[in-house]
Amino acid sequence: MYSFKNDYTETAHPRILQALLDTNMEQDEGYGLDRHSKAAAESIRNHLGDDACAQSADIHFLCGGTQTNLTAISSFLRPHEAVIAPETAHICVHETGAIEATGHKILKTPTADGKLRPDDIQLILDIHPDDEHMVKPRLVNISNSTEIGTVYGKRELEDLSRFCKENKLLLYADGARIGSALASEGCDLSLADMRRLTDAFYIGGTKNGALMGEALVISNDSLKEDFRYHIKQKGGLLAKGRVLGVQFEELFRDGLFFELAGHANRMAALIMTKLKSKGYDFLTNSPSNQIFPILPAELIRRLQKDWAFYVWQKIDEKRDAVRFVTSWATKEEIVREFLKEF
Amino acid sequence: MYSFKNDYTETAHPRILQALLDTNMEQDEGYGLDRHSKAAAESIRNHLGDDACAQSADIHFLCGGTQTNLTAISSFLRPHEAVIAPETAHICVHETGAIEATGHKILKTPTADGKLRPDDIQLILDIHPDDEHMVKPRLVNISNSTEIGTVYGKRELEDLSRFCKENKLLLYADGARIGSALASEGCDLSLADMRRLTDAFYIGGTKNGALMGEALVISNDSLKEDFRYHIKQKGGLLAKGRVLGVQFEELFRDGLFFELAGHANRMAALIMTKLKSKGYDFLTNSPSNQIFPILPAELIRRLQKDWAFYVWQKIDEKRDAVRFVTSWATKEEIVREFLKEF
Amino acid sequence: MYSFKNDYTETAHPRILQALLDTNMEQDEGYGLDRHSKAAAESIRNHLGDDACAQSADIHFLCGGTQTNLTAISSFLRPHEAVIAPETAHICVHETGAIEATGHKILKTPTADGKLRPDDIQLILDIHPDDEHMVKPRLVNISNSTEIGTVYGKRELEDLSRFCKENKLLLYADGARIGSALASEGCDLSLADMRRLTDAFYIGGTKNGALMGEALVISNDSLKEDFRYHIKQKGGLLAKGRVLGVQFEELFRDGLFFELAGHANRMAALIMTKLKSKGYDFLTNSPSNQIFPILPAELIRRLQKDWAFYVWQKIDEKRDAVRFVTSWATKEEIVREFLKEF
Amino acid sequence: MYSFKNDYTETAHPRILQALLDTNMEQDEGYGLDRHSKAAAESIRNHLGDDACAQSADIHFLCGGTQTNLTAISSFLRPHEAVIAPETAHICVHETGAIEATGHKILKTPTADGKLRPDDIQLILDIHPDDEHMVKPRLVNISNSTEIGTVYGKRELEDLSRFCKENKLLLYADGARIGSALASEGCDLSLADMRRLTDAFYIGGTKNGALMGEALVISNDSLKEDFRYHIKQKGGLLAKGRVLGVQFEELFRDGLFFELAGHANRMAALIMTKLKSKGYDFLTNSPSNQIFPILPAELIRRLQKDWAFYVWQKIDEKRDAVRFVTSWATKEEIVREFLKEF
Repeated sequence: MYSFKNDYTETAHPRILQALLDTNMEQDEGYGLDRHSKAAAESIRNHLGDDACAQSADIHFLCGGTQTNLTAISSFLRPHEAVIAPETAHICVHETGAIEATGHKILKTPTADGKLRPDDIQLILDIHPDDEHMVKPRLVNISNSTEIGTVYGKRELEDLSRFCKENKLLLYADGARIGSALASEGCDLSLADMRRLTDAFYIGGTKNGALMGEALVISNDSLKEDFRYHIKQKGGLLAKGRVLGVQFEELFRDGLFFELAGHANRMAALIMTKLKSKGYDFLTNSPSNQIFPILPAELIRRLQKDWAFYVWQKIDEKRDAVRFVTSWATKEEIVREFLKEF
Repeated sequence: MYSFKNDYTETAHPRILQALLDTNMEQDEGYGLDRHSKAAAESIRNHLGDDACAQSADIHFLCGGTQTNLTAISSFLRPHEAVIAPETAHICVHETGAIEATGHKILKTPTADGKLRPDDIQLILDIHPDDEHMVKPRLVNISNSTEIGTVYGKRELEDLSRFCKENKLLLYADGARIGSALASEGCDLSLADMRRLTDAFYIGGTKNGALMGEALVISNDSLKEDFRYHIKQKGGLLAKGRVLGVQFEELFRDGLFFELAGHANRMAALIMTKLKSKGYDFLTNSPSNQIFPILPAELIRRLQKDWAFYVWQKIDEKRDAVRFVTSWATKEEIVREFLKEF
Repeated sequence: MYSFKNDYTETAHPRILQALLDTNMEQDEGYGLDRHSKAAAESIRNHLGDDACAQSADIHFLCGGTQTNLTAISSFLRPHEAVIAPETAHICVHETGAIEATGHKILKTPTADGKLRPDDIQLILDIHPDDEHMVKPRLVNISNSTEIGTVYGKRELEDLSRFCKENKLLLYADGARIGSALASEGCDLSLADMRRLTDAFYIGGTKNGALMGEALVISNDSLKEDFRYHIKQKGGLLAKGRVLGVQFEELFRDGLFFELAGHANRMAALIMTKLKSKGYDFLTNSPSNQIFPILPAELIRRLQKDWAFYVWQKIDEKRDAVRFVTSWATKEEIVREFLKEF
Repeated sequence: MYSFKNDYTETAHPRILQALLDTNMEQDEGYGLDRHSKAAAESIRNHLGDDACAQSADIHFLCGGTQTNLTAISSFLRPHEAVIAPETAHICVHETGAIEATGHKILKTPTADGKLRPDDIQLILDIHPDDEHMVKPRLVNISNSTEIGTVYGKRELEDLSRFCKENKLLLYADGARIGSALASEGCDLSLADMRRLTDAFYIGGTKNGALMGEALVISNDSLKEDFRYHIKQKGGLLAKGRVLGVQFEELFRDGLFFELAGHANRMAALIMTKLKSKGYDFLTNSPSNQIFPILPAELIRRLQKDWAFYVWQKIDEKRDAVRFVTSWATKEEIVREFLKEF
């Protein structure tokens, strides 16, 4: 039984483990103040642009998307301020109310494809006039790639960024799969764009080859102060912070991060191409490492004998959408064997 | 410059990294539902006793002491219930208000040696009659070993446990350094005793050879329900939970956990023996891996040229207490070289 | 300018103020432990039924609907448990995220008429399997009358109650306007039914003649323990709790509570009857003291010269729904004058 | 049995009830936007000084000291920021962890007389260096008069205010008994001083003749934004906010507020003078309406037959400190009768 269920099915890319081995017995400072965490931050900063704002971005290493989201959002907001998010957002659905547990309401909105657009936000703003009987929308949460595989283009993100600034809204991006998004075919966005167009976003390592680890990038100066207190208070400050630093240092040493994401995308594209050639439809238009083909129930049952994946959504009496996820660890020969099923 | 600052100065014991390498490309379930996490829980359970209660203890793997403490305590208490803790407790001082951030007051009490005794708790109970204008004391938090190196004996823990039961108080133990406590010379406590005498406690891996990772043991049935929801909500549920499972599986495969703790204790004892022979006093009576000798300021300044450690507390005009911490990674030959300084 | 904006436009029914005057200089205990609060609770209990459960219901007096809702709900739930509510619910829209501020997510659902039915709840349950990545639905929040004037019948509430019990859900009713609901024409529900069919509900005084004050009735034994701690912690325990007790004692002395609600309903019915006779439609079918006629924009503009009311919702280019609210204080002669406008 | 237990033993000063009667049937806006709340704020502002800062102070009416404290403090602080308070402070002891329930730690410090001095605060600052492992002290909470009857002089408050500014600490005063403090003999502080020397403070009505009600004065511009959202979210925004406005309008119409406080102080002074003349000591040096004489146990038992009061603290085998509280409602003839007991 081979699994296409997730991009965290194996442990870590061998180079990651090797880097941990190589630095294992070095003595260093705790809590992310070690040389590797600093070097990793510097490497990432070099991808954020040449300007002063990029070079002064704060970078913090945390462990897990929910931890990163809840720490960032609860640090950025005052108690009466709320989050706007697509109803498919991870923070809406799959974080067990982590944001609400820090005291903040999420105002969710339906979208066609998991991506938030200015008009969607405007609808929320329209029903939230400046009125103390209602929460005050203050932070827009997007995911790139989204939870259903779609990715933002530069123009889309620029529109969103401008709209947020005009409306005094913070823009925060959940980048659990930002590697896959930026490495996707036709994507014209870069990490520097992500930095320039958001107030903060994170670069997900867990789903792109690391043992665990997410790098939060804060570019808005007003959100930087005392952030490490929040990481500690919410339980996210690792004693051996170097474990995260060493991993991101390796991921950003020579492009490994994007190479791994590119591989995952190519594996997904192989599957997609074959299925399209067979005439199957897809639930969403995904160039990233999560694809959602719509398959006959009978075929799904047959596939389930040898392959693990999630059945995502009922389409009609005869068909369901399924989710296939590929990763840095997905082997091309196995994918080719898988494709013989169709 | 060699460091005696902490027990998280190096990364992980080589066997830990090797175990991660050996299992690296296995596909498995996420979120701690993998075979290694299950096997690790089973190994730990075998140390908890033969009775039904031991065998049905819930074991959860989390990452970091603060994360474990805040998740456990906030799950166990209703909003008006408070924690009793020694004023030296990690949750009182060094968790940036993590417990209060989940809504609970900590009622702290001074102690002679970092250990809580029934009389200390009784003083808190005396000034908290059943009165809705005050919080309701409900959970007693101890650390073993304590933050100042002392350890509980079996009789002491039995007294505390009985007192808590009689007063309808939950007993929770922060075991960030439980390995060092249980492996300390003359200690008559075991993991089975910890399980039997507390409602919940955790076994700290981070400070005893793991990359990171703490194993929370919940023996009180009434505290078990839905605990995984709380891990997730507080950001502690790792996608690659196997990373924690594999490490604890290795630590408890053949006694590595206690072996590492024993080594750390022996290294501390070497230093203590020499310093006592030289007539130096100690701030606390510590058989564990943290010792607090009281040294002349002049000697401290000389040591600081080649050795890193914390100056802990001013004693008088001429002397300070310092903290030396040893670990699984402390090399005996370096300790012997260090001792030549005295 | 006469106002139909709200049912809290005037202060209090004269008998309420008289009762305060009559008892003003009596010395009594603070914090709701006075003789009037006890007598008021006893009077209310006499409306709750003859059985042991009714006679042992806990009754607490609080001040304001938001305060009552947030105190009750946060006391009843564990951190990972969530509330199910219609999207029109006061807690969803008009409490500035008060429930989320205590840490709990609200799962909202659209309804045709503001009333929740088993099928609506089932839809939420269907997408929340027992999965620690999502919140656990635990409490169903209804309002009676609803925020759009509709009221529950006995059969409807019985169905809801049974469904909740079968699904281990708590049923809580926001009774800000419970007086108007129970006094509405054709309503077959009583306070005893409300007690019998919910786990807790509150009887709103603020919108039915009191200065302020809501009486929370808790019938589920498992929700009673230590509730006064929660009132205090959330800021709702009045030093002069007698002020609430005296008012509810008066409201329930001889039926004043229902008399006032009945008057409010009759005044609304006068308006409704006239408007229906003129052929106007209504947004909802409301027998209570809030009615929502759909009027031509031109007529609305004319009315606004002399009468205050809220324009509620745009219907089409030419028409809006407006809200007229009547109360114990609404004078029949003024209503008759108002009706000449149509 | 006549009670000296509290200053909330009777309901309200007759003029307060009369003012409610006089304005009862006026129609007005809800939620504190009515003409009386505005007029009351204006009256209070006229006591705050002539300068622009005084005239632009924000004034909000809330209900209850705990509600006011928790709403203000949680609005003023970010999640990692903590409160410094004397260990006798109401927020430390008698608010059921209300501040912690909003997520903030209180750093309490012992004091000789319930008053906080710069040196006390410095001790807390000394052990809280800028370190993300500990909370960040940010707000100093004092009470005037204190919970044990003492009052601040102008010089003391100026010292405290300067120290706070120098250390970037906010200064907040709980004024549950500010009337008694300012009206106390020899007190050189005014409301204008309180405004000038704090960032925010509240004027307590509940314990000085009102049914309930506290007026929060915010002078620090940076703390003003969106405060009404916080009142609403925490359950403190009364629908009939006019009830608070009408009361404060009356209290500040012609000096009634200070007159009532002065009466309470004079009644306490009568008792104190007599007891001092009889040679009894006092626990604290209180010029306000709470006094704490130290009496023989035998005398206490005799007094308890006809008079209600709290036994406050055991002094030695033969003596206890008791608390006598007077108020606007305390009748001089009864005090004189009471004094015959000594």
